[in-house]
Amino acid sequence: MAQKLNKKPVTGMKDILPAEMQVRDYVIGVITDTYREFGFSHMETPCMESIGNLCSKQGGENEKLIFKVMKRGEKLNVAEAQTEADVVDFGMRYDLTLPLARYYSNNSANLPMPFKALQMGNVWRADRPQRGRFRQFMQCDIDILGDPTNLAEIELISATTTVLGRLGFKDFTVCFNDRQILKAMAAYSGFAEADYDEIFIILDKMDKIGLDGVESELKENGYAAESVEKYLGMFRDMETVEDTLGYLAEKLAGVLPAGLAESIDKILSSVRACAEAQYNLVFDPTLVRGMSYYTGSIFEIKMAELGCSVGGGGRYDEMIGRFTGQKTPACGFSIGFERIITILMEKNFTVPGEREKVAFLMEKDMCTEGTVFVFGEARKARAEGKQVLVAQMNKNKKFQKEQLMKDGYNVFREFYNDSWNK
Amino acid sequence: MAQKLNKKPVTGMKDILPAEMQVRDYVIGVITDTYREFGFSHMETPCMESIGNLCSKQGGENEKLIFKVMKRGEKLNVAEAQTEADVVDFGMRYDLTLPLARYYSNNSANLPMPFKALQMGNVWRADRPQRGRFRQFMQCDIDILGDPTNLAEIELISATTTVLGRLGFKDFTVCFNDRQILKAMAAYSGFAEADYDEIFIILDKMDKIGLDGVESELKENGYAAESVEKYLGMFRDMETVEDTLGYLAEKLAGVLPAGLAESIDKILSSVRACAEAQYNLVFDPTLVRGMSYYTGSIFEIKMAELGCSVGGGGRYDEMIGRFTGQKTPACGFSIGFERIITILMEKNFTVPGEREKVAFLMEKDMCTEGTVFVFGEARKARAEGKQVLVAQMNKNKKFQKEQLMKDGYNVFREFYNDSWNK
Repeated sequence: MAQKLNKKPVTGMKDILPAEMQVRDYVIGVITDTYREFGFSHMETPCMESIGNLCSKQGGENEKLIFKVMKRGEKLNVAEAQTEADVVDFGMRYDLTLPLARYYSNNSANLPMPFKALQMGNVWRADRPQRGRFRQFMQCDIDILGDPTNLAEIELISATTTVLGRLGFKDFTVCFNDRQILKAMAAYSGFAEADYDEIFIILDKMDKIGLDGVESELKENGYAAESVEKYLGMFRDMETVEDTLGYLAEKLAGVLPAGLAESIDKILSSVRACAEAQYNLVFDPTLVRGMSYYTGSIFEIKMAELGCSVGGGGRYDEMIGRFTGQKTPACGFSIGFERIITILMEKNFTVPGEREKVAFLMEKDMCTEGTVFVFGEARKARAEGKQVLVAQMNKNKKFQKEQLMKDGYNVFREFYNDSWNK
Repeated sequence: MAQKLNKKPVTGMKDILPAEMQVRDYVIGVITDTYREFGFSHMETPCMESIGNLCSKQGGENEKLIFKVMKRGEKLNVAEAQTEADVVDFGMRYDLTLPLARYYSNNSANLPMPFKALQMGNVWRADRPQRGRFRQFMQCDIDILGDPTNLAEIELISATTTVLGRLGFKDFTVCFNDRQILKAMAAYSGFAEADYDEIFIILDKMDKIGLDGVESELKENGYAAESVEKYLGMFRDMETVEDTLGYLAEKLAGVLPAGLAESIDKILSSVRACAEAQYNLVFDPTLVRGMSYYTGSIFEIKMAELGCSVGGGGRYDEMIGRFTGQKTPACGFSIGFERIITILMEKNFTVPGEREKVAFLMEKDMCTEGTVFVFGEARKARAEGKQVLVAQMNKNKKFQKEQLMKDGYNVFREFYNDSWNK
């Protein structure tokens, strides 16, 4: 029976200690309350999906990272199996977007229209384990399904930035762009449509390699110098122009879809005017976002202090239709839950409104009457909003108190057999 | 690309609709707050554990129901694999107790002593799918590790019944027994220790087959008539005795461990005296509880209206030691989270303190100024504690409002291009 057991969590996943858990619970509370205020409904899907759905080419690179779940019972015959398909039927979800699409197609008859969804849940990716990146982590997404208008974008950005503000973040930047801007700029420059994806991947490196870097990489990849110069020319112009959106609207007149610049302007103005948090919302024509499923607006939250993104999203009007068979406009915003927790933990964030912690220490072998008395006192203190620990007094009471103080217990009451009722 | 996708969740798991999710969130809130008040710390482990830990014979029948996770990358060779061990390295947890034992052994240096743990999380069991039973479901456990005294039992039962009371449950019954009572009764009757487990399994059917049924089944299984009669005689006596615990203390004097009856009496008296909820706590010498890891007290919550258990637990002083190598007393109480949700949903439970729901409907193509105005109004209403939906007004406004009313929106404001500022 005394078989050797493994004390460590499985590779790449982590145990969460109480101090972090308290911060996580607080953040989840702020998220839930705020998104509810904005009319989002919390919903949930199972953590597993059928392997066919997960491998349907909507997850990009993430599909390579699926934790696959084995068939069970008679359906499983390992010895005779030749390929993965013979032994696997389910997989762990790698994001919350594909499950949302499936959920919506399965339940739309019972959902409001538009459906404003809030999801918070773990996802799993069999990435190479590395510091600060885990193979099980929480995602937190809001999505609006069935709203083709830019009210969806306004709500999503307002709600998400309000959450961040309420968590104490400020001076962050939300970058906003639209895939149609990206495409119009490429079209105007004379690039072939088939090349757009590659061009955008190079453009996406702007942060790291700068305008000149993008220019040389495009040229190295064999794109016509004329196109590259026309393309880069616009980005160079915009470095000095105040109203970049206006500049592009004029420059790309005839190439840009009608009303797009006005729509973007309305989104930016409305969100800015009603902002609760202190932050910047900027139009950023260099913003690309990787996922191929985006069809319109795209956005991303950047925090200067981190040099990385703490959230992003965009419009993906084509994805839901693959399940439902009928086109359903969709737009979503995901916040980097784990990154936010990491930042708060590094800042030694204190959860507001924590209860006072009181420890009641009882002498060993307290009589029944005394025990009843002590638990009655504990009940009263708890009713007053205190967190009460009832424990037996150790022989080394001083050490015991020191340990409890480390855990936040600063008030002590002691109860003895001969004096509990005095 | 137009590959056929599966709309349904995987067999035996379910999508959770917003109405249920709201109840779940509320219940989770009450649980978290109440257990915190009692000094429990929320903690979390990954949903996967190494397959060796999961199959270490502590999970009983549940080990047959593990969802197993495939190895990845180079470690996986399906074509050459002969057995499951060749292709599996992880598994989904089937309960929260085994992960807790691993967690404690991994982190005890950073945990308070005693450690009062709260866990809420999904577990997975590949059970035959059936109505109302799912293959992914939430468990909610509290455990006290490192406390050998009966203060642990008092805290666990008080905290759990307080949660149930705050969720509106009353007149339920908590049955209390101790494995040592079970053993002493069997020893007193002259049964061999090797037969105890089988005898208790038969005793456990008392609810269904009654005293006579238990008697005949014991006899059919070949137990000595004398022992069976001595054994059943005690249960028969106790049907008319008021103080069953006192009866057994006297009857089993010399067989019962010293101080056990007094300890049980102290637990029952203390919990009863400080009860916040209205319920009964009874000593029930017929209570068995299946899991073999229990070593002392055992308890179970019964609701007459359901005829089934909505929670249970007990002391398991031997399990943690298998990981840590040193004996760690442990006692836990698990509430049937999913069952509680089912009951509340069937009762049409309304979550208290819900926000007023207001829908703002905007005419199509509202100008930027008007849009800014409307979102400003939404911000104000949200700040007043209202849940606000901002949506474009449909052509069929009447139908739109009817749909919104189904979703709880009873107050509407309409905004038109030509009059938003009037």
